[in-house]
Amino acid sequence: MAAIITLTTDFGLADGCVAAMKGAILSINPEARLIDICHTIRPQAISEAAFVLGTAFEFFPRGTIHLAMVDPGVGTQRRAVILRTPVADFVAPDNGVLSYVLQKSSAKAVTGSQQAELGPALEAVAITRPEFWRSPVSPTFHGRDIFAPVAAHLSLGHPPADFGQQVTSLAMLPLSQPRREPDGTLAGHVIHIDNFGNLITDVRAGDLPRTAQAITIAAGSHTIAGLSRTYGEGKGLLAIIGSSGYLEISFNEGSAVAFLDARLGDEVKIRLKLRDRP
Amino acid sequence: MAAIITLTTDFGLADGCVAAMKGAILSINPEARLIDICHTIRPQAISEAAFVLGTAFEFFPRGTIHLAMVDPGVGTQRRAVILRTPVADFVAPDNGVLSYVLQKSSAKAVTGSQQAELGPALEAVAITRPEFWRSPVSPTFHGRDIFAPVAAHLSLGHPPADFGQQVTSLAMLPLSQPRREPDGTLAGHVIHIDNFGNLITDVRAGDLPRTAQAITIAAGSHTIAGLSRTYGEGKGLLAIIGSSGYLEISFNEGSAVAFLDARLGDEVKIRLKLRDRP
Amino acid sequence: MAAIITLTTDFGLADGCVAAMKGAILSINPEARLIDICHTIRPQAISEAAFVLGTAFEFFPRGTIHLAMVDPGVGTQRRAVILRTPVADFVAPDNGVLSYVLQKSSAKAVTGSQQAELGPALEAVAITRPEFWRSPVSPTFHGRDIFAPVAAHLSLGHPPADFGQQVTSLAMLPLSQPRREPDGTLAGHVIHIDNFGNLITDVRAGDLPRTAQAITIAAGSHTIAGLSRTYGEGKGLLAIIGSSGYLEISFNEGSAVAFLDARLGDEVKIRLKLRDRP
Repeated sequence: MAAIITLTTDFGLADGCVAAMKGAILSINPEARLIDICHTIRPQAISEAAFVLGTAFEFFPRGTIHLAMVDPGVGTQRRAVILRTPVADFVAPDNGVLSYVLQKSSAKAVTGSQQAELGPALEAVAITRPEFWRSPVSPTFHGRDIFAPVAAHLSLGHPPADFGQQVTSLAMLPLSQPRREPDGTLAGHVIHIDNFGNLITDVRAGDLPRTAQAITIAAGSHTIAGLSRTYGEGKGLLAIIGSSGYLEISFNEGSAVAFLDARLGDEVKIRLKLRDRP
Repeated sequence: MAAIITLTTDFGLADGCVAAMKGAILSINPEARLIDICHTIRPQAISEAAFVLGTAFEFFPRGTIHLAMVDPGVGTQRRAVILRTPVADFVAPDNGVLSYVLQKSSAKAVTGSQQAELGPALEAVAITRPEFWRSPVSPTFHGRDIFAPVAAHLSLGHPPADFGQQVTSLAMLPLSQPRREPDGTLAGHVIHIDNFGNLITDVRAGDLPRTAQAITIAAGSHTIAGLSRTYGEGKGLLAIIGSSGYLEISFNEGSAVAFLDARLGDEVKIRLKLRDRP
Repeated sequence: MAAIITLTTDFGLADGCVAAMKGAILSINPEARLIDICHTIRPQAISEAAFVLGTAFEFFPRGTIHLAMVDPGVGTQRRAVILRTPVADFVAPDNGVLSYVLQKSSAKAVTGSQQAELGPALEAVAITRPEFWRSPVSPTFHGRDIFAPVAAHLSLGHPPADFGQQVTSLAMLPLSQPRREPDGTLAGHVIHIDNFGNLITDVRAGDLPRTAQAITIAAGSHTIAGLSRTYGEGKGLLAIIGSSGYLEISFNEGSAVAFLDARLGDEVKIRLKLRDRP
C-alpha cells in the first residue's frame, strides 16, 4: 500500500542508519513512500525534534505515518508508542518527542507530571508485541528493529491495537510559554533558530490581542516598533508572525541570530499598548 | 498521477520547511514523486540556486516539474511564475532563479534590463489565481502555501494558463561571461565551487577553439599547461572540461579551492596559441 | 518497474550531481524508487563509503540495486562493475567500495593481492557495453553517464551478462582487523565514528568468546570494565556491541570521540579473562 511514512531523527547524514531504517520499512511494505522531515536534529535533542515535527506534520495528507526517532533511552524501559490522531499516526519513543503534536491535538497536559491525558479523539498503544519487530532486536537500534517495522506494518493497515495495550497518557515536555509580567509585558523565549537565522519565539499570534494599538518588542538591547508583514519590509531587525504562527525576530537581508548573538531560551519582551475601548 | 517534482531551496536541512512543502504537494497529488535537487543553497543566493538547477534539470525525464524556492522577496510584489519549456516545467519566483534554464532554453536576454524575452518555444504565466493555493497564505512562506500547491496542481495536468495571465518575459540575472582581452587572452571567472573543491568557471567548451594548438591557463599565481581529460591525469593543479561543459580548475588528489585560496568571482586567464592555418 | 535503487556517493549535498544521477535513472526507469544511503562520504574516501554501504545494504528488500559512487579514478582504466549477490545487486567502480559487501557475501580475499575471489554464489561483470550508457560520456562524471543508466537498465530486468563480460574477482581493500597479541590481548582499531561520536571498532561480537568472564577495554588512557547492553547504562565511557555487530566505545550523554580526542585508526585494547573451564 502506497502509504506515506515520514522520518525525523538525530541520526545525521553521514551514517547508514537512516537508510537501514528505510530498508527495514521497504522490506515489509515495498510500496511505502518515504519522506524525510529532518535527520540533523542535535544528538538526543528531544525538544528540537518535537518542534520540527510540530511545524511539518499538519501539512501531510490525512493518515500519514510519522516516525520520530530521537531516543536517548534506547534499550531501557522507556515505552515505545503509537499515537493515532484524527489527522495522522505517530510512531515514537514515549519521551516527549510528540509534545507539540499532543499540544496541537488538544491533549491535556497534566500539571507537574510531564504527562498529557489523551482524551477521546486520540488513541495510543504501547508497542509490546514482538511479532511485528525484526529479530533479533539490537538493544542499541530500536529505530531499525522495532519502530521502522511497526510503522511499516501500520502502513499495511494493522490497527494500533494489534501492536500492544492501550495507554491513556503520553509523555509531554513542559513546553516553553511566554510569561505575563505585572506591568502587562509579555516575556517570550527563543525556542528555535531557523536556517535564515530567524529567532522563533514561544509567543503565538493569539497571544497578541487584536486590540493592540502598538507593539514594541525588545530583543537583546534592541527595540523593534510594530510587526512587519514580510521579511522584506523595513531595514535591519524586524518582528513578524512566521509561517507556523509564532512571533519571529528576523533581520532584513541578514541573520538575526548573528546580529543579536542570540541563543535558545533568550528572552524577547513584548510591550502592548492597548487601544482604548470605545 | 506519478509526475516527478524536484525541489531546489535555501531552506537548509535542519528545519521542517522542506517537509512542509512536500506535505503540501502530496496533499494535492499523493502520487507525485519528489526528488531533492538541493536544499543547502546559501540563504537567498539566487544565482547559486540558478546555477545548481541549471546543472541538473536537463537530465530529468521530459515533463518533470522543477520547483525553485530561493525567494528573498516573499510576500512582496515580486511575481510568481510558471515557465513551460519543451523539456520541463518550472515553478518559481520571478527573481532570476531560472536564469540558466532560460539561457539553455534560448530565451533572449534583453540588454540592460535583467529580463529575457521568451520567444515562441517557451510559455510562461504569472501565478495569480488563489483557487490553487493553500488558504490562508502565510506572507512569509509562499513555498508551502502557493508554489508547492501550484506545482502539485500542475502535476495533475492543469495547463499553465489555468494559473494566471501569460507573460512574455522573465527576470534574468546578468550571467557571468568570460571577457576577451585585446591580446586574445580569455578572462574567465569562478562561478561555482563544488564539493571536491573544483573551481567551475564561466568558460564553456565552445569558447575554446578546436584549432587551439596549446592552451595555457593562469589561476592565481599558478600556470597550467593544456587541458586534462580526467581528474586523475597529471599531478597537482589541472584544467579540465567538466561534466556540465564548463572549464574547471581542479587539483589531483586534493582541493583546488584550498590550494589556490580561491573565491567566487576570481579570474582565470586562458591564453590560446592557435595552430597556423594550413 | 518499481525497483529500489539506493545511492551512496561523495558528491555532497550542495551540488546538482546527485540529482543529475537521479534524473538519468528516472529518464530510463521512471518508476524506480530512489533511496539515499549517504552523500556526505569524505571526498574520495573509498573505505568510508564501503563501510557505510556495508552497514545498510542488508536491510533492504531482496533484489535492491545499490549504486556506490566514490570514484577517484573516473575516466581512467579502472573497471566499472555489476555484482549480483543472492540478496542484492551492486553497481560501482571496481576500486574496493564493495569491500564490506564482499566480506559479508563470503567472497574470499586473496592474500597480498587486494582482490577477492567471488565463488559460485556471486556473479559479476565488467561494464563495457556502451549501448546502455548516456552518450556522449563525460570523462569526469561516469556516475551520471554510465553507472546511473546501467543501474536503471538493470532495474528494468536486464541480466548482468547484458552489460559486459563476466569477471571472477573484484577489488577488495585490506579491511582493518583486530590483532591478537602474545599476552592474549585483542588490539582493535577505530574504523568509523558515528553521528553521536561513538567509536566503532573492527572488533566483532564473535571475536569476544562467550566464555569470557570479564572484559577490560582500554581506550586512550581510560579503562572500561565490562560491556554495557545499552547506551544508557552506567556513567561516562562505556563499551557496547553496536547494531552492526561491532564493538563500540560510547559515552553516556556525551561524545566518546570528543572525550577521548580519538581518530580513525586509533587502537582499542581488549583484555579478556576467561572463565576456568569446569
